[in-house]
Amino acid sequence: MENEEVVLLSFWACTFAGKVRVALAEKGIEYKSMEQDMVTKGDLLLKMNPVHKKIPVLIHNGKPICESQIILQYIDEIWPHKSPLLPLDPHQRAVARFWADFIDTKICELGKKIWKTKGEEKEAVKKEFMESLKLLEGELGDKPYFGGENLGYVDVSLLPFSCWFYAQEKVGDFSIETDCPKLIAWTTRCMEKDSVSRSLPDQQKIYRFVLGLRKLFGVEE
Amino acid sequence: MENEEVVLLSFWACTFAGKVRVALAEKGIEYKSMEQDMVTKGDLLLKMNPVHKKIPVLIHNGKPICESQIILQYIDEIWPHKSPLLPLDPHQRAVARFWADFIDTKICELGKKIWKTKGEEKEAVKKEFMESLKLLEGELGDKPYFGGENLGYVDVSLLPFSCWFYAQEKVGDFSIETDCPKLIAWTTRCMEKDSVSRSLPDQQKIYRFVLGLRKLFGVEE
Repeated sequence: MENEEVVLLSFWACTFAGKVRVALAEKGIEYKSMEQDMVTKGDLLLKMNPVHKKIPVLIHNGKPICESQIILQYIDEIWPHKSPLLPLDPHQRAVARFWADFIDTKICELGKKIWKTKGEEKEAVKKEFMESLKLLEGELGDKPYFGGENLGYVDVSLLPFSCWFYAQEKVGDFSIETDCPKLIAWTTRCMEKDSVSRSLPDQQKIYRFVLGLRKLFGVEE
Repeated sequence: MENEEVVLLSFWACTFAGKVRVALAEKGIEYKSMEQDMVTKGDLLLKMNPVHKKIPVLIHNGKPICESQIILQYIDEIWPHKSPLLPLDPHQRAVARFWADFIDTKICELGKKIWKTKGEEKEAVKKEFMESLKLLEGELGDKPYFGGENLGYVDVSLLPFSCWFYAQEKVGDFSIETDCPKLIAWTTRCMEKDSVSRSLPDQQKIYRFVLGLRKLFGVEE
């Protein structure tokens, strides 16, 4: 591990960057986090991710790796000995990748829409969001983590989105725990891990951020 | 390989299913292809992919695997000994995954828009589509395949989309070869492989399909 240079181009509230922070912390990898301005976008970001110009970018010994799921798999392949993220069995790997993709598309998209919409549209989004979370509640079942006895690929993928639950509940006036008690118990269990809590933003800070975004996008009710 | 049951829920023109057909053919895996009705969606599809209700679904010994990139990686992990798709080096794997994702998002989205739009909007889409293809032309460089000396993950991911190039050129009245000669030479080189040509639809048939879709969506000029 010596002489390795690990840099993460990040933004504190970004769920996709949050995944990478949790994965690196779980693996015990030291890294330098460089907070990016998401509006102006710095020269380093444009150089390291010229195609998408987006964070997160992991720069490992000078080489960039882009897209959060790809970064997670890279981290798992480069540092396989501690806290494996993906299971070894090919079918279980496919299932973990499936739910991680579901989180990146469905949960991300619907979660955003909760604070971007109002009125009837918001009610429809809330319903679909809860249906999606219930699928994850079913996938978690009675396991302590999606990964089984330990934090795995799906846990790391969902955790940064769970930091937005409080803001989504406040803005949407609903309770996730009512229909998904296991999922909420899972967030509490995960947050007790130092690797998780120090890598992710406080839910109150996310709530204030969301209120600011609603003002910015003119969606106040 | 004996007593293995490999079934693919597919649709002949679907680019995502096309990738899986090429990968299975490259690996020399025998499978039963079951053509799906994309409008009514059969009971088997709904049972095997209840979350997204989409093809392709690979059913291996009764267990479903969904989402084309996840299926490709599953195939590569289950049958690693012939025609490896992903490279072994973690950084090269990340790069291959990056371009496969770029194809599934950018190339797919812009490619569709060429036949779904008209007038000025179509001109803007064509420009962006060509810019995206030029990035792939640069990534291919002077290698025979994206995977180097052999067909790899990016080749398999892009090939089904290349079957739509002819229709896109006809409908959009432009030439991909003018700006991307290496990419067009690559499609010819790949199509000479039996595993590729027998797994993918004829470009004339795709063109007739696209003309039908344009009628259906009311985008005739």
